[in-house]
Amino acid sequence: MYKCLMTIEEAQIAASRVMQRCNELAKISEIDNGITRVYLSAEHLRANTLVGEWMVVAGLQIWQDAVGNICGRYEGEKVAASAILLGSHLDTVHNAGRYDGILGVLSAIEIVSWLNKHKLHLPLAIEVIGFCDEEGIRFSITLLGSRALTGTWEESWITCKDSSGITIAEAMKNVGLDASNISAAKRNIKDITAYLELHIEQGPCLYKENIALGVVTGINGARRLNCSFIGKSGHAGTLPMHYRKDALSAAAEWIVFVEHTTKRYNSYLVATVGKLHCSPGSVNVIPGEVHLTLDIRGPEDVLIEKLLSILLDQAHIISLNRGLRFYSNQYYRIDSTVCDDNLKRIIEHSVKFVQNRSITLSSGAGHDAVAIAERWPVAMLFVRCDRGISHHPKELVTENDVALGIQAYMQAIYWIAKKK
Amino acid sequence: MYKCLMTIEEAQIAASRVMQRCNELAKISEIDNGITRVYLSAEHLRANTLVGEWMVVAGLQIWQDAVGNICGRYEGEKVAASAILLGSHLDTVHNAGRYDGILGVLSAIEIVSWLNKHKLHLPLAIEVIGFCDEEGIRFSITLLGSRALTGTWEESWITCKDSSGITIAEAMKNVGLDASNISAAKRNIKDITAYLELHIEQGPCLYKENIALGVVTGINGARRLNCSFIGKSGHAGTLPMHYRKDALSAAAEWIVFVEHTTKRYNSYLVATVGKLHCSPGSVNVIPGEVHLTLDIRGPEDVLIEKLLSILLDQAHIISLNRGLRFYSNQYYRIDSTVCDDNLKRIIEHSVKFVQNRSITLSSGAGHDAVAIAERWPVAMLFVRCDRGISHHPKELVTENDVALGIQAYMQAIYWIAKKK
Repeated sequence: MYKCLMTIEEAQIAASRVMQRCNELAKISEIDNGITRVYLSAEHLRANTLVGEWMVVAGLQIWQDAVGNICGRYEGEKVAASAILLGSHLDTVHNAGRYDGILGVLSAIEIVSWLNKHKLHLPLAIEVIGFCDEEGIRFSITLLGSRALTGTWEESWITCKDSSGITIAEAMKNVGLDASNISAAKRNIKDITAYLELHIEQGPCLYKENIALGVVTGINGARRLNCSFIGKSGHAGTLPMHYRKDALSAAAEWIVFVEHTTKRYNSYLVATVGKLHCSPGSVNVIPGEVHLTLDIRGPEDVLIEKLLSILLDQAHIISLNRGLRFYSNQYYRIDSTVCDDNLKRIIEHSVKFVQNRSITLSSGAGHDAVAIAERWPVAMLFVRCDRGISHHPKELVTENDVALGIQAYMQAIYWIAKKK
Repeated sequence: MYKCLMTIEEAQIAASRVMQRCNELAKISEIDNGITRVYLSAEHLRANTLVGEWMVVAGLQIWQDAVGNICGRYEGEKVAASAILLGSHLDTVHNAGRYDGILGVLSAIEIVSWLNKHKLHLPLAIEVIGFCDEEGIRFSITLLGSRALTGTWEESWITCKDSSGITIAEAMKNVGLDASNISAAKRNIKDITAYLELHIEQGPCLYKENIALGVVTGINGARRLNCSFIGKSGHAGTLPMHYRKDALSAAAEWIVFVEHTTKRYNSYLVATVGKLHCSPGSVNVIPGEVHLTLDIRGPEDVLIEKLLSILLDQAHIISLNRGLRFYSNQYYRIDSTVCDDNLKRIIEHSVKFVQNRSITLSSGAGHDAVAIAERWPVAMLFVRCDRGISHHPKELVTENDVALGIQAYMQAIYWIAKKK
């Protein structure tokens, strides 16, 4: 039987180092008890320096690009070959966990470390990147690191301010970067052949399935809407049930429909009513107006649109039946990202190699791969996180799962480079 | 065929005067564009004075009692006979309509006016009362006027403060009343034989039925509860539908059940979820907690209790099925008031006399009759109000409906006094 390129013993040593480095990076934080590390902060530079040192030890040639990503390159069999880009992000949300993003960067370094140790050069170069901003916490724009690579930075962004009124341009200057030079971070299309990102799942699917690794089919697109049911308020004592135009009862009927229909429509789609305001909001007054939000996500835009249209149609039907009015306004839309079929198949094959079976899942959260997919084929490998908890200090992965992840990651990269 | 005692022409003259007097009373207000008249205010005294003058003209002997009610007495065939008490309240809510309460007091005066004009004395005396406080707007305690008559004033109430920090005792002193003397307003049980109140419906039933008058079967009891569904918040993107413990979806399922079950349970019962708070309340977070109120009312306590128990059981079942927890806390309870069967039958008979048919309905709102019923038999006659609008400047009745109301009121009083 064909064996994995990287032995499990090697993977375990790598995983142990990754776990230790995650702990070290967790110390680089602007808050004392917890992890907060945002774009263009002193912590951003310190993290880049530390990760850069680890990259060098692993055998990468490093540089910090014009937007603030920490980058490294390990040549292929021939100099200047196109690269497989590996990585994820090093920034965090407020009071974050220690694995979201970071695990992907450090695992990628282990890939090069292993290749270098075995003096193995592949037909493609390997590049590793630690993106400087994915979460978008500081300036309320996400994916600033990866969008510099793809050349989709908008000029106006450098005037965006953080909560202290500091613009991106000023913040860049403060850390020795030049906002007028961002376009230098853009990579040529031929520089990169594929992007492979390892990441924690940030959801409970692998945990519930009791399996370490999952292959990502795509990153969910999303729509967000503000919706209103307009009925008529009235006296909770004097107005009989059959004369009422209760906006909350109508909204409740719809929320039940949203849940029921989404559940049965497609197991990859999710729909959430997260915010609800009921007016006038008194114990003894029938609600005349309900304003609520709908968040709907799925791996394929056509499915999202179809489900959304079913849900909105039903809201109108409910309102019509009850003599109410319904309004909706879509204020946010992000298209879905589909992972490259070929890359996905190879990762699936690798995952089966290390854990005997493979499961596919779509990503409910956004990732750097969303931006990268606009220019290059992408694929993602998910590692189980405890109870699906993420963006929280309790975010947790096991060393064993990380070892399996690195092993499968190595195998996939090798096959892709060899054009298996 | 037996004819009404009061002719329709007489009733129309009386109704016309009542409408005109409602307009005059509407001018006694603490606000310029609208009506607000609260207990122990200058407007309270002015209204008492004006209504007292009308009482005298009608043939009543008047006095202001120890709590501030304006009272009048028209003797029966024999001096010191027990009385049928007629009336309602003269205080208002903020920015009120001009008929709620007032219509009942002024119609009662017309009864005596008619008897006096025809020099008719009945076996029972007639007393008319304009209660000084039913709405409870100023001191947040309702029925202060009628509770003085029944002797159910609590001693501690005189220390209750209005929004300016003035206690009831102080406010009484400011208008020449003495808080230590409130018990003097208490009436002996034998002074009164029955209490009859004419009032606008404050709901849409008569309006929808296209009928002027209705006979009240009782005044709804009420329960108010704070309820909570406790689930688990989560990422709206990464948590699949079937792993969720969405507190809002659970609450929605229950709200639908509350509406559906109450509608089918008994047409006199109403249940309302008027207030709903959804936590954490973000578009992209699954609600982990929902806190809401339930207001449930009905004409019979046993029915209210039975329905409430069905609703709460279902809340627990929904929570159990979804892996959530449900809590409820009843923080308000008022028992239902049942109108006296005998009085009700007589009023029904009178109503049939003037409008050919009679319908019965329960009162969703509270009335002075709730307090009075603790000591004496009570009954109520409702007059249609336009579209059911009440507690609002648009509150409206027609002069024709008021004429029919006075005619039926007169007839009922006559029959009751004659012990038909």
